[in-house]
This record gives sequence, C-alpha cells and structure tokens, in this order.
Amino acid sequence: MRILRVLTNKKAEFIDITAAVAGAVSEKATTFGLCCIFCPHTTAALTINENADPSVTRDILTYLEEAIPAGNSFSHQEGNSDAHIKSSLFGNSLTVVIEDGQLKLGTWQGIYFCEFDVPRKRQVYVKTIDSDSRACSAEDLSRRG
Amino acid sequence: MRILRVLTNKKAEFIDITAAVAGAVSEKATTFGLCCIFCPHTTAALTINENADPSVTRDILTYLEEAIPAGNSFSHQEGNSDAHIKSSLFGNSLTVVIEDGQLKLGTWQGIYFCEFDVPRKRQVYVKTIDSDSRACSAEDLSRRG
Amino acid sequence: MRILRVLTNKKAEFIDITAAVAGAVSEKATTFGLCCIFCPHTTAALTINENADPSVTRDILTYLEEAIPAGNSFSHQEGNSDAHIKSSLFGNSLTVVIEDGQLKLGTWQGIYFCEFDVPRKRQVYVKTIDSDSRACSAEDLSRRG
Repeated sequence: MRILRVLTNKKAEFIDITAAVAGAVSEKATTFGLCCIFCPHTTAALTINENADPSVTRDILTYLEEAIPAGNSFSHQEGNSDAHIKSSLFGNSLTVVIEDGQLKLGTWQGIYFCEFDVPRKRQVYVKTIDSDSRACSAEDLSRRG
Repeated sequence: MRILRVLTNKKAEFIDITAAVAGAVSEKATTFGLCCIFCPHTTAALTINENADPSVTRDILTYLEEAIPAGNSFSHQEGNSDAHIKSSLFGNSLTVVIEDGQLKLGTWQGIYFCEFDVPRKRQVYVKTIDSDSRACSAEDLSRRG
Repeated sequence: MRILRVLTNKKAEFIDITAAVAGAVSEKATTFGLCCIFCPHTTAALTINENADPSVTRDILTYLEEAIPAGNSFSHQEGNSDAHIKSSLFGNSLTVVIEDGQLKLGTWQGIYFCEFDVPRKRQVYVKTIDSDSRACSAEDLSRRG
C-alpha cells in the first residue's frame, strides 16, 4: 500500500490526485488488475469527475454548499456535521481498473480528493491487486509439474 | 477487461445492465472473486437498486430531477453541471462478489447504468479478479516442489 | 465469502459493523489485500463515517430525513421510495485495504450498516482478496522450475 500526502487549503476544495495515484500504480508495476483508492477521513471524500473545465468542480462545490450548509442546526458539537454528511454522500473508496500498467479512466475523468472541513494534512491510501495471478492457477501448476 | 456498450435514449434514464455484466463474468470463468464495474463518463453513473418494480427507478429519477434541476444557475458553459453532480453523488465504481461463477446480488437487486446527460453511446468496464489464487501460494509451491 | 447477520430496530438507523467485518477478515487470514463489503438490499446501504461521537450519525440521519422524507409523493406502491433513493446515494459496496491482517481504516472511521426502511433481518457480504499472490507469478514459477 502507498500513502499519498494531500495538503488542503480551503474549507471546501477538490484537489486533483490523478497523477499521484498513477505514480503509485507505476511503482507497484501492476500490469493488469485493480486499484483501490481509499480516504481514511470522515470529513473528506474521494470522487471521479471532469478534469478539463475547472468550472465543473466549482459547480459541484457550490451545489453542496447550498444543499448542505455548515451551521448550527446539527447536534454534533464540532460544527462540521455538514462535512460528515458530504463524506458519506460522495464516499470514501474508489475502484479503478488497471490495464497495461495504466489507470483505465475515461477521457475526461480525474480523481479528486474532496476536502469538506478545514484545511489540513490529509492522506489517501492506494492499493493495487494483480489479476495476473491466474497465470499460476492450480491447473497450470499440475501442467508444469 | 470487458467493455460493454450502452446506448442511452433519454436525458435521464436507468438502463439495467445486470445480464450484460453477468455475461462478462461468465466469459472470464472467474469462479470466486470480485467483479469491478466502472463507468468511464463524468455525466453518468452506476448504481444497484430494485429491478422488480420499475416505479422505483422512476421515483429515483423524479427525486434527482427535483433536487438537482438542470438550469442556468451553474457556471459550467455546457449546461450539464447537474449531470456532473449526480454522477459524483451516485458514483462511478461498484464492486460485487463472485461466488460459484455468479454475481452475488441480493434477490431484488439489479445493476443500472445511469444516464444523467443527453442520449449517446456509453461504455461500462467490467473487470474480474480471482480469489482462487491462494491455491498457489508460495507455501503450496514449496510443498509441490 | 462470509455473511454477517444484522438485526435492525428502527425505520432509520446506523449500526456499527466494524468489529464483525474485522472478525471476518481475521477468519480468512488475509494478511495483505482488499476487503469488499457488500449490502444485498435495495432499501439499505453501507457507509464509513465517525464512530467516536454518536451525534455524527444522528445528524446524518436527521439530514436524510429532512432532505428525502418518506411520503406519498412517490409512485412506488410500497411507500418506501425514500429508502431506495438513500440506498443509491450512500451506495451498496465498500472496498477497504487490508494490511498486516487488519482493516486499514482511519483513526475515527467505523463501518456502518444503514437501515433506511423498516426494522428487519439484514445481511452483509464480506469478501477478501489476497494481494500476496504476486509471490507465485509465472516468472517465479519458471525460476523455481
């Protein structure tokens, strides 16, 4: 597993971590398989969305701010229940296919770390699983034996 | 990895792709493992929900249309920011268990491709990972050796 | 695959299943890999959020109840369309990294089964995948041969 460090700068912000995730996949030399990307925080999330026009993520953040405003109507004393709600709505784990050693994303897709609370040091876990293991199934072993 | 082709017909629509995903799993002959289903688009999504009564997916679409209407209040010039928001809320990747060569879904569950933008040709990636690989662990190899 | 039994008690409730999932991982003796947690129901979901202060999950439930109230404005005759919507928003599958035989969760994270319909007997599927299988790649086999 590789741990990425993410430094956030605002109360609510999307940070493109696509290149960092791709770097972690390259290090592991997984040619075919799955990449699991996990956010170990409860007031942040991960999402995949457009990385061409920055107005898209800006519109998503504007929507979330209006739909789930931070405020005093929640019982949790820390005052960041809105961030916890956004975290559960967007989710903490993503699974992306790896083909030919590359993350198999769509043309316009980027992987984003979503900060919903205050700026701070965050982490993202990246774990790859090989699907090449079929090359050494029990059947293959007996054939080779 | 298997690529499924999905042709959508409406601005907002759920298309049941369960049989197509199950077909891709059969082709791969994965008996035990995981199936990752991935949507490589940023204005569409994947979800699992009831496939018995079609009024369920209709109600979900009605809710989304009311909660996040398409419109001019967004900055993204293409005018489909609502679709990008719905994509992040529903998510792009699903992971389903494979047992005895079958997708291990609940009784009432179907896998849906969710179109949130305009009708077009879409794709879905299906990738299976075997968990049988434990059958040839290093320990087994030395024992066989 | 391990099936966990979950007995829910209320219309809307979050039940912490972290210890049960961790127990299933221990049984399988997966040291490094992925754990997929899957909810086979269409009016329930799974989420990861704070397990320290119970006011957090209470606030999330309060938000959901206000944002998506149960009611008669839906076409689905069973009257639980709100639960189906919440299920798709929160999602049915989670993927968590396993390191050193442990679920690699963040400090404040717990895994929750989310009941959105009426109290009943529910199930959760837990499936682990080893990433140690690389130890017996085709290359290793030929070297050993």
